[in-house]
Amino acid sequence: QNKVDIGFWTQAWYQHVENGKGDNGLNDFMLRRVYLAVKGQPTEYLSFFTHIAVDRFGQDGLDNPSMGLGSGLTFRDLWITLDMDESFKIQAGRMYVPLTRNYGTTSTKSLLTTDLSFMQGGIRGVIFYTSKVGRDDGITLWGNPFDGLFQYRLMISEGIESIANPDDNLRYVGRAVLNLLEPETGWFNQGTYLGKKRVLSIGAAFDLQSNLTLNSEPGQDNFIWTLDAFFDHPVANGAVTAESAYISLKNSTQANSFVQLSASDDADFFYIQAGYYFNSPVAVGNIQPYFRYETVSIKQKENTGIFSGGLNYYLKGHNAKASLDYTIINYPEADAQGIFTVQLAVGI
Amino acid sequence: QNKVDIGFWTQAWYQHVENGKGDNGLNDFMLRRVYLAVKGQPTEYLSFFTHIAVDRFGQDGLDNPSMGLGSGLTFRDLWITLDMDESFKIQAGRMYVPLTRNYGTTSTKSLLTTDLSFMQGGIRGVIFYTSKVGRDDGITLWGNPFDGLFQYRLMISEGIESIANPDDNLRYVGRAVLNLLEPETGWFNQGTYLGKKRVLSIGAAFDLQSNLTLNSEPGQDNFIWTLDAFFDHPVANGAVTAESAYISLKNSTQANSFVQLSASDDADFFYIQAGYYFNSPVAVGNIQPYFRYETVSIKQKENTGIFSGGLNYYLKGHNAKASLDYTIINYPEADAQGIFTVQLAVGI
Amino acid sequence: QNKVDIGFWTQAWYQHVENGKGDNGLNDFMLRRVYLAVKGQPTEYLSFFTHIAVDRFGQDGLDNPSMGLGSGLTFRDLWITLDMDESFKIQAGRMYVPLTRNYGTTSTKSLLTTDLSFMQGGIRGVIFYTSKVGRDDGITLWGNPFDGLFQYRLMISEGIESIANPDDNLRYVGRAVLNLLEPETGWFNQGTYLGKKRVLSIGAAFDLQSNLTLNSEPGQDNFIWTLDAFFDHPVANGAVTAESAYISLKNSTQANSFVQLSASDDADFFYIQAGYYFNSPVAVGNIQPYFRYETVSIKQKENTGIFSGGLNYYLKGHNAKASLDYTIINYPEADAQGIFTVQLAVGI
Repeated sequence: QNKVDIGFWTQAWYQHVENGKGDNGLNDFMLRRVYLAVKGQPTEYLSFFTHIAVDRFGQDGLDNPSMGLGSGLTFRDLWITLDMDESFKIQAGRMYVPLTRNYGTTSTKSLLTTDLSFMQGGIRGVIFYTSKVGRDDGITLWGNPFDGLFQYRLMISEGIESIANPDDNLRYVGRAVLNLLEPETGWFNQGTYLGKKRVLSIGAAFDLQSNLTLNSEPGQDNFIWTLDAFFDHPVANGAVTAESAYISLKNSTQANSFVQLSASDDADFFYIQAGYYFNSPVAVGNIQPYFRYETVSIKQKENTGIFSGGLNYYLKGHNAKASLDYTIINYPEADAQGIFTVQLAVGI
Repeated sequence: QNKVDIGFWTQAWYQHVENGKGDNGLNDFMLRRVYLAVKGQPTEYLSFFTHIAVDRFGQDGLDNPSMGLGSGLTFRDLWITLDMDESFKIQAGRMYVPLTRNYGTTSTKSLLTTDLSFMQGGIRGVIFYTSKVGRDDGITLWGNPFDGLFQYRLMISEGIESIANPDDNLRYVGRAVLNLLEPETGWFNQGTYLGKKRVLSIGAAFDLQSNLTLNSEPGQDNFIWTLDAFFDHPVANGAVTAESAYISLKNSTQANSFVQLSASDDADFFYIQAGYYFNSPVAVGNIQPYFRYETVSIKQKENTGIFSGGLNYYLKGHNAKASLDYTIINYPEADAQGIFTVQLAVGI
Repeated sequence: QNKVDIGFWTQAWYQHVENGKGDNGLNDFMLRRVYLAVKGQPTEYLSFFTHIAVDRFGQDGLDNPSMGLGSGLTFRDLWITLDMDESFKIQAGRMYVPLTRNYGTTSTKSLLTTDLSFMQGGIRGVIFYTSKVGRDDGITLWGNPFDGLFQYRLMISEGIESIANPDDNLRYVGRAVLNLLEPETGWFNQGTYLGKKRVLSIGAAFDLQSNLTLNSEPGQDNFIWTLDAFFDHPVANGAVTAESAYISLKNSTQANSFVQLSASDDADFFYIQAGYYFNSPVAVGNIQPYFRYETVSIKQKENTGIFSGGLNYYLKGHNAKASLDYTIINYPEADAQGIFTVQLAVGI
C-alpha cells in the first residue's frame, strides 16, 4: 500500500500508405502507442490507475499535444476506483467509453490484429463515437456479479461538450456481457489469449446523448447500439480467436473523410476477425496469422469495404512481438488504397 | 543516493456550475490535479524534486498543454536544492511563488478546504498574481533558523516576461514566518494536520516587479503585500484548523472576469477559513466540516463576496479522502452563482 | 526482465543575454534539460529506452509543447532495440540522428562544455540539420564489430516531412567511427570522461535527403558530410579532453537568424574544444576549465565566430556538478553579443 507500481509498453511502426501523399506513397515511421502505466492502492477500497501516453507519435501531419496524439504527452487513462465489492465498483476519471468490445474493453497492448478496427481508430482510421482518444471523462459503475458470468459497465460522462451540446446534457453509455466459459472480470480484456484462456463472450451496449446540434440542426439525439461476440479457445496444436460486432449509429457526432462519414449521418458498421495461434514455435517465437473484414454502410451513400490480413510473431507473448499487416480499403467511387504496416512491440 | 523515489496523487471531481453554460447549468467531470512526484538526492548537499502534472484535466473549455492546464502534461514543480544548512538552502528551478500561505507554501494535496481560496485559483477561480500555475522560474534562498522558530523564503524570479516588462526587470518575492508552537520546516506545509501537529504560525510577505507596462501604461510597479495566520491544534475529541489572510494588491498584472479584476487595478482580498476534525470515526472514516468566507474589494468597483462550506471524509488521511463543497459567489450586480463540487482523492 | 528501470537528471540555468530584449539585457531562468529515463528488457533480444523530457523549460519566448521545447512534455528519445549481436543491432523509433559526435552520439548529460556547439543547438543556438530536437523517426542499424575498434550507425528516417518533400523521400544518415584506444560501444558517449577512460576516436558521417523543395526551388538535395576527432586521456595530475569537427552543408533545410543561415544555403562549420580536469579537489569538488572556438562560413555571406570559455565543478561526476560559461558571438556586421550562463546539474 506504500508503493506505486510502474509499467511501460510501446509499439514501433513503419507504415506505407499508397497514394498517401498526393499521388505518391507515404513512408511513415511512428510510435503507434507509448504507454507508461502507474498504479497503486493507498487503502483497502481505493486504488488508482493511469497511462501517461502518446498515440501515433510522429505520424505525418498529426500534431495534437493536448490529447497526446502525434506529439506531446498526456494522461490517456486516469481513474480512481472505489472497489466496494467484486460486483459493484465506482470508477471516476478519464477511461474507456464502455461501448464496443474492440476499443471499449480490450487492451490495445494485446490486440489480435496489428491495430483496432478501422472505424474504431485502427491503421489510419478515426473513431466513430465521441471520445478523447477512445476515452471520456465521467463516472462508471461496473462489476462482475454471479462469479463473473455477467459483467456490466454503466458510464455517465460528458460526451460532446462544445456548443453542439447547448444544454450540456450528460452522455449515458451502458454495456453488458455474458461470459459463457471462463469469465473476463478485469477492466481490460485481451484481444487474443494465445491459448491460455477459454472465452465465449456475448456483449451488447448502447451510447446516448440527447438534444445535440449536429450539422447546424438542433435537437438531435446521438444514439448507438451494438452487439458483439468473442471466442478464444485452444484447439489441436494451437488456439483460435474470433470476434465480430455489428454497430448501428444514428446521428453521428464524428466525421471521417476516408469513408465519407459526416456529422448527423446514420450508418451501420460490421466486422469479423479471426486468428490462429500455433503452439509449435517457428525459430524463437510463435506465429499467429489473422484476417479482418469490415464494412461501412452510410445511409444514402455508397458502402466501403475494408480488408486486413496479417501475422503476429510472439517472442514473449504480448510483451515482445512483431507484426505485419496489409489493409486494403475498397472505396465506392475511387481506386482501392493499400496500407502496409510493420510493428515491433515490447512491454513490461 | 542511487534511486529515484516516485509518488502519485490525484483528485477526481464532478462539478456543477449554476448558469455555467449560458443560462444552463454546466456539468463538469475533471481530474482537478494529477501529480506524479519524482525526487532524489545524488549527493550529500544536492537533491531534486519534480511534479509531472496536469491541473483541471478535462475542465470544460480549458486546453493549455504548454502549462498542463486542462490538457497535455508538463513539469509543475521542478527544482534542484543545494542544502548547505537547515538555515540556508538555495533552490533553483520552477517552484511556488513564496507569497501567500494558501498557495505559496501549502501542498494542494492536503488542503483543509476542497480547493484553494477562489482568488488564488480555487474552485473556478484564477490566481491574482503573476505565475505559471502558481509557480515561477527563478532562485529561492530559504531556511529555518532558530530551530525552525523562523522560516524565510526569498525568491528572485522572472515574473512578467512579455513586452509588458520592456526592461526585463526581475521579480522579488519574500516571505517570513514565525512558528510559535511546533515548527513547519519543509517546503510544503499541510493545509490541515488532522490532529497530528500543533501549529500557530504568523506570516508576512511581499511581491514586487517594477516598471511594467500594464493596461498600455508604462512605468507601473506591481506590488503586493500580505499578512496571514494559521492555527492547528487538537481540542477535546478532535482538532481545529483555522487560517486567515489579508492581501493588498497594487497595479494588478492579472485579469479575472468573475470578480471584474483588470490589469493595473488596485484591490484588497481577505479570507478566513476554519474546520473541525472529529477523532471518532463515522463508519470507516473521519469527518471534517469546514467553511471559508472570502471578500474581494477592487478600487472604484463593487465588492464580491464568496462563501464556501464543505466536508472532508478521511479514509486514510490525505492519501484517501472524499470531499464535498458548495461555494456561492455573491456578485455586486448580478445574481449569485452556486458551484457544487464532489471530490475523490488518493495518493501514495 | 520484469521491472522497468527509472532515472532522472536535470540542468537548472540562469542565463544573461546581452541585448537579448531589444537594447536591454535578457535575464532568463530555465531548466535547460529535464529528462526522466525509463528503460527495460522484457526478453533476451529486445529492450526499450525512453527519455520523457523537456528542453529549455521556461526559456523566454519558447513555447512548443508538441516537441517539449520551452513548455509541455514529450518523449525525446524512444526506441526498441533488437540486439542480435554486439556487431548488429536494429533500433526503431525516435533517436539521435547519427551525424555529428557532438549531438549525434554524446549524452547531453555529460558534456565537456556547459552546452553543445552553438550550431548544434547549444547556448541559444539552433541545430543546423533537420530534426525533432536532435532526433528523427526511423530505423538505425548499428553495432561494434572487431571488439569495438569500429562502430557504425546507419539510419533510414523521415527527415523533412512537409510539402518541402513532395515525393516523401526517405533520409539516409550514416556514421562510422574508429576507436584507436579504449572502445566506446554504447549508444550514448560521454563528452568528457574525467580521467576514467582513454579514448582516441576518429569519426566520419554523411546525411542525405534528395529532391526537396527549398526556398521555393524544387529538386534540391540536402547533403551534409562531417569529419571529427575526440581525445580523452589522463595526464600528470588530471585528464585532458579535446574534440574537433568540420562540417560541410549543401542546401540547408534550416534557418538560423543568429548567423544568417537560410534555407538552401551552402555552408561550412568548424569547432575545436578542449578542457582539463584536475584530479586534486578544490574544497569538495574537482574543477575542469574548458574553451571552444567555432566558426560559421556561409557561401556569399560574412563569417561568424563564436568563442566560449567556462568551468565545470564536479561534486559527484556528471551526477552533481555546477558550470559557468561565457560565450561571445562575433557577428560580421553588428556588435559582438555576450551570453553568460550558470548551471546547476544533478542526476541519478
